[in-house]
Amino acid sequence: MTATRPGGRSAKVRDAVHRAAIELLAAGELDAAIPRIAEQAGVHPTSVYRRWGTRENLLMDAAATRMHERSPVPDTGSLRGDLAAWATGVERAMTEPEGHVLLRALVATVSNVGRPSEHLRLRGADLQKLLDRAAARGERVPALDDILDHVLAPLYVRALFGMPLPAGMGTTLVEQLVSPSE
Amino acid sequence: MTATRPGGRSAKVRDAVHRAAIELLAAGELDAAIPRIAEQAGVHPTSVYRRWGTRENLLMDAAATRMHERSPVPDTGSLRGDLAAWATGVERAMTEPEGHVLLRALVATVSNVGRPSEHLRLRGADLQKLLDRAAARGERVPALDDILDHVLAPLYVRALFGMPLPAGMGTTLVEQLVSPSE
Repeated sequence: MTATRPGGRSAKVRDAVHRAAIELLAAGELDAAIPRIAEQAGVHPTSVYRRWGTRENLLMDAAATRMHERSPVPDTGSLRGDLAAWATGVERAMTEPEGHVLLRALVATVSNVGRPSEHLRLRGADLQKLLDRAAARGERVPALDDILDHVLAPLYVRALFGMPLPAGMGTTLVEQLVSPSE
Repeated sequence: MTATRPGGRSAKVRDAVHRAAIELLAAGELDAAIPRIAEQAGVHPTSVYRRWGTRENLLMDAAATRMHERSPVPDTGSLRGDLAAWATGVERAMTEPEGHVLLRALVATVSNVGRPSEHLRLRGADLQKLLDRAAARGERVPALDDILDHVLAPLYVRALFGMPLPAGMGTTLVEQLVSPSE
């Protein structure tokens, strides 16, 4: 038995709560509230309220964490390489049941609160770093909105509507946007 | 008092049920079930079950009807004109609260049944007619998937995530896809 450092314990609670939320969503409990998620995670609801405040914040944190794990902002040395690696990660997340159930829950949450989702803003902030790096190298970079509209949106809509998502589609979308001549 | 023809009455029930479903969704009752929708519409639940069978079918019919009203498949004489008119209709539907709440409900329904949404298939079938007409005139036409990925998807994702949807965006997306030289 080793003593658990506070940071270690806190990280474990975070992981357990994220996992519980994703499991419940994947099992079809799309409106699972905080007490139910806490129960599934084996933690006290108070801990969840104290840490995240609202269900929306919890889902957003779970989505951001998972997306970051699945599609971190890569550094391959070229814009095309970076964007292709990032889009491949998004594509992979969208072909996993847990990935699109989380996205779907985020979409439902936006509706409830009636204001723009933090989710796309966070994804955009990740991407902006990658674009800034390419611009600093002197590469011509597309607008952030064009990447959201023409790479992220097709992957998201296909996943959300249960359409086929062919392997390699993320890379193809990037190549259409960032032509090799640039 | 005029006697109501059976067709007239049937159409009225259909309208009332569609309207009730959309109202409940817009009011935040995202999981309103058939009995609740029937109550709101002032009809007997049995009539709803008999006509639509499932909540999914009802929402799909409501979405298809509304989308068709808002963005019918136009016939302007040119592919660019047709697509721009259609995309403007989608854009308009997505900037109305009832439009994106319905889309969001459809997305949630796909998750529950775990199979591809009829919604995109129906939208695709509408578009295919327009493309076939342009091809018959000898125009070069884009692939249906490209229209779904690069016109419909950006409009849907911006609406679903509560992002800004600038006026004229539908037309701009069409013009990027169908270049004037073609």
